[in-house]
Amino acid sequence: MPEPLTLYTYFRSSAAYRVRIALNLKGLKPDQRFIHLLKNSGQQHGEAYKAINPQEIVPTLIDNGHALGQSLAIIEYLEETHPEPPLFPKEALARARVRQIAYAVACDIHPVNNLRVLQHLKHEFDATDGQRTDWQQHWIALGFSAIETLLAQSPETGTYCHGNAPTLADICLIPQMANARRVNLELAPYPTLVRIEQTALAHPAFAAAQPMEQPDAE
Amino acid sequence: MPEPLTLYTYFRSSAAYRVRIALNLKGLKPDQRFIHLLKNSGQQHGEAYKAINPQEIVPTLIDNGHALGQSLAIIEYLEETHPEPPLFPKEALARARVRQIAYAVACDIHPVNNLRVLQHLKHEFDATDGQRTDWQQHWIALGFSAIETLLAQSPETGTYCHGNAPTLADICLIPQMANARRVNLELAPYPTLVRIEQTALAHPAFAAAQPMEQPDAE
Repeated sequence: MPEPLTLYTYFRSSAAYRVRIALNLKGLKPDQRFIHLLKNSGQQHGEAYKAINPQEIVPTLIDNGHALGQSLAIIEYLEETHPEPPLFPKEALARARVRQIAYAVACDIHPVNNLRVLQHLKHEFDATDGQRTDWQQHWIALGFSAIETLLAQSPETGTYCHGNAPTLADICLIPQMANARRVNLELAPYPTLVRIEQTALAHPAFAAAQPMEQPDAE
Repeated sequence: MPEPLTLYTYFRSSAAYRVRIALNLKGLKPDQRFIHLLKNSGQQHGEAYKAINPQEIVPTLIDNGHALGQSLAIIEYLEETHPEPPLFPKEALARARVRQIAYAVACDIHPVNNLRVLQHLKHEFDATDGQRTDWQQHWIALGFSAIETLLAQSPETGTYCHGNAPTLADICLIPQMANARRVNLELAPYPTLVRIEQTALAHPAFAAAQPMEQPDAE
């Protein structure tokens, strides 16, 4: 019987990385299709892929023929359809805290540093490689500084962002830490984030989801 | 007895606009505190506000002394603590569809056009007012084009983005439509979005949440 889940992914996409972590935590092993974001001016812009994801971005999860886009929508869907192990705490205030940290990454850091934004900066403002690195460092530092404060001041922070088990907050944070390292951001001001990253990367679900562990890694 | 909910808001913030719609739909009337994002180099950067929202952005909702940031985290929290009327359909695939549309706005359009990004473009690349308007039009058009396709091709689209009642998708879309109008984006290519906007703005919860209806409007 064929596996009903198919993930369209790219090793370096941090949105795809999030979904890979969630799938691993849930013990799900989808069939994978690789969409290279740079080859042939970007395979995500091809007609075949555009038909399943009109936003022309990765990832897309296909579940029994239904195409789902947006990494956080996919992860909430996985949580609703495969509740164990949970990716959220039970209590509403705690769930809000986890989502706040997750969205601080997924809404306010990541989209501003996305490949297409960096390409547009080059196209519109002749941004040099150095300026594009500065741009990325600026937004990551701004976001990490706030998240470090949120985590360091709260008794609810444990070995992970919330307590001692992974949640959506860690699923968003860890791929963003990888991006921070790629642009050589100085991480010393964020000791709580670095500590949580160490904890998470020792977990097989996070370790196996890393970009360089993927079949399409270069 | 004091009202336990307090909303820190700014009339023109589309993230605050989303939360205002959700509160109105749920019949909740929080106490409001106004944070002017431009006066005094931005009141969101003041020490008092920073203590309740380290990201230095609006909105923040205070519920019985607990500060919650990130508009979508606040709305999911309101849904969990005040389930009626629901802001999501019941079925998991339908919920994923609503979240996909919502995040297509909240992750991929709005953050790239945020005030602080526009300020940074000016600071780093001497972006003119015209270039900053082009920037905003570019990202809104890209996002709206994908959302128009998602909505126009689906039988699940009704008078609202999903069926005939407001959901999180509309809560994100309508404030983004207001932003599109502010930068004079040509809306003719997005007939489904324009139709849904008309429906939504005839609903008192959306109408009363509009920027110019707020006590701090200028």
